[in-house]
Amino acid sequence: MIAEILATGDEIRSGALVDTNSAYIAEKIEELGIKITRHNCVGDDKSELTAILLELGKRTDIIIVTGGLGPTLDDLSREAAARATGAPLILDSKVLEKIKSFFVSRQKSMPDSNTRQAMFPQGATILENPIGTAPGFSLQIGRGTFFFLPGVPAEMRKMLDEQVIPQIRKSLKDPYYYKNETISTFGLGESALEEKLADFPALFPDIKLGFRAKFPEVQVKLYQKNSDEDTLNREQERAITWIIKKLGHKITSLTSQPMATVVGNLLIQKQATLAVAESCTGGLIANWLTDRPGSSAYFLMSAVTYTNAAKQKILGVPPQTLERWGAVHEETAKAMALGAKDVSGADYAIATTGIAGPDGGSPEKPVGTICIALAGPQGAKSKRYFFPFGIRQLNKKIFATQALNLLRLELL
Amino acid sequence: MIAEILATGDEIRSGALVDTNSAYIAEKIEELGIKITRHNCVGDDKSELTAILLELGKRTDIIIVTGGLGPTLDDLSREAAARATGAPLILDSKVLEKIKSFFVSRQKSMPDSNTRQAMFPQGATILENPIGTAPGFSLQIGRGTFFFLPGVPAEMRKMLDEQVIPQIRKSLKDPYYYKNETISTFGLGESALEEKLADFPALFPDIKLGFRAKFPEVQVKLYQKNSDEDTLNREQERAITWIIKKLGHKITSLTSQPMATVVGNLLIQKQATLAVAESCTGGLIANWLTDRPGSSAYFLMSAVTYTNAAKQKILGVPPQTLERWGAVHEETAKAMALGAKDVSGADYAIATTGIAGPDGGSPEKPVGTICIALAGPQGAKSKRYFFPFGIRQLNKKIFATQALNLLRLELL
Repeated sequence: MIAEILATGDEIRSGALVDTNSAYIAEKIEELGIKITRHNCVGDDKSELTAILLELGKRTDIIIVTGGLGPTLDDLSREAAARATGAPLILDSKVLEKIKSFFVSRQKSMPDSNTRQAMFPQGATILENPIGTAPGFSLQIGRGTFFFLPGVPAEMRKMLDEQVIPQIRKSLKDPYYYKNETISTFGLGESALEEKLADFPALFPDIKLGFRAKFPEVQVKLYQKNSDEDTLNREQERAITWIIKKLGHKITSLTSQPMATVVGNLLIQKQATLAVAESCTGGLIANWLTDRPGSSAYFLMSAVTYTNAAKQKILGVPPQTLERWGAVHEETAKAMALGAKDVSGADYAIATTGIAGPDGGSPEKPVGTICIALAGPQGAKSKRYFFPFGIRQLNKKIFATQALNLLRLELL
Repeated sequence: MIAEILATGDEIRSGALVDTNSAYIAEKIEELGIKITRHNCVGDDKSELTAILLELGKRTDIIIVTGGLGPTLDDLSREAAARATGAPLILDSKVLEKIKSFFVSRQKSMPDSNTRQAMFPQGATILENPIGTAPGFSLQIGRGTFFFLPGVPAEMRKMLDEQVIPQIRKSLKDPYYYKNETISTFGLGESALEEKLADFPALFPDIKLGFRAKFPEVQVKLYQKNSDEDTLNREQERAITWIIKKLGHKITSLTSQPMATVVGNLLIQKQATLAVAESCTGGLIANWLTDRPGSSAYFLMSAVTYTNAAKQKILGVPPQTLERWGAVHEETAKAMALGAKDVSGADYAIATTGIAGPDGGSPEKPVGTICIALAGPQGAKSKRYFFPFGIRQLNKKIFATQALNLLRLELL
């Protein structure tokens, strides 16, 4: 059994929009053990659309189509599907009522054009859209079972996950269960991870192992399928336990949480508060921490002190420290962390001072050098690191992640 | 004349990677006045690849292929192209020398596998790769002129822009020049912009006008083609002058610069310095400002004061102000800005305090409320705004942009 994807719409065809739907769909379909052979994209053109639907219906078993279900005249998926099957479009009064009530609930009246969204090719099975006005539908064209979904990613994803994937799974002769786990790690490269997990394939022959770099973290991915759900869950559990033993604290999350959320959860668990002093990370640590709702429960402040004067005035870094060691030094970082802890009354403080580049490097302190300090109830410590990326934004990211990681290890 | 795009590779086919190349290529080809009819994608499979090359060669004039030019065995574009034309692969010794010297310049010896990258189907014209080891090539298959490019976006873009596009332009019967301008705006929605520019189509019939939301900014796009380059430049200049008159200071950049860079440039021009005090923006303003290399020339510090205590201690906000007005108030914002200016000695300071959500809203101060203050040589002012987005990260973005925009207007 093979499948293809068809993205429709002039915005994608002409390059005004990048098509992110097809990658999402491909992953989900391949998780069922069905091979995606091709992706296709055509614009809002009825004869082009009809032609490709007929082509796909000749060569493929399952086709996921996105886009062209809106209320406007250039939304042509319904018309093209009807033309490809030779069947007429028929108004579904139940769907029309739903669309009308969608507008009523928003205290608006339905524009006439939305009536189009209640029209379906004869023989189609309607797929409900729980979050938008555009329902989808499934339809047989030639040998192909087509699923027509909206182009809006949030709507498409929800309908694919909740309706299309279960329906396809049910139709499989040998339906099996699929499990996909993501283990986030920080501090080891892909090849080092591969080496540490070298015995995995022999120990877990039914589980496929993969690695994906999500800078600066690396994700370990486990893909497994089994016809028995219990066996699947047991195997997966055993594999994860084995990986945890091998990688230990290099694992930051088993649920794809960003580092700042992991640290936030640990602070909540410990009922502890945090202050930050940032030089080279320039506010990135604070920004990550405050992206999370409710972060005010533990995040008190960050002093983004780009100048020596600000380091002295706000964080109380002694002028002698700056004079003797310079801005980028373990001692300066330590004084910054202690200052942030002191001025805020936080339980913990982290501080960063380094050279993000492209300028400001020197032979002893090249671009990519950072000193990170951590102050806590047991005192303060400070360490120097070097990262060889040489690109300002990457440096800011890995500097900030490294600082948060130090705190994570302290809180574990 | 029509064109298609073929992305190759299992990573894209299986959804592990989102294909961003095709959108880039589509825009560039359509800029030449050539219609992209379809995008296609197949995996690393020699017979699938050969089959689609033959299909494309039957139905399309120009085909841009990406991927499959690497040194490994699953890089199959060369083999498939040779098979599709029935011609053998031939080693190009000049290219081989170049690849070898690429490795020598990095003080490495070339692995044997890279020899594959110097093999081309007989009859192909080589396209140089100035930044990687994988050269591309062009080749006729059926009616189609194929351009094979690497999948690495930076390499693909450079080769497309510098070699493929000029070559296609030269081959056009009526070659014309193309100009694409982007005008960034902030503070008006798409429909308001459209209304203000309603006379444009009548005044500049040869220029196509478009709008693209890049939250929280909206870009006005001008697309124009002309067979005479001077006429084109003159028309475009006239159009931009007209738009500047219509939109005035709503225009933030004519060169797609982010707001923080625009503000940075103005500060450099005025030789002025900036301090920031952030509550609800949580470090985002500082992070944006410091993403730009050299920002230490004008950015002195940001105090990300999430607690009232930090607002008092670091920024010297009077306890009575907080008691009387609360944390989210024009007076509190003003005290924060004055405090940041004072403690840092900066020429200007901006301050934000508001409710990013999802919690913390009230009937008088709902989620989306923000007070922004600006302190400068002429004193301080403060204002309240409300944005109806309701999503924390969007609120942080529009709050930060609004604050930077106030400073921009002050510095103009």
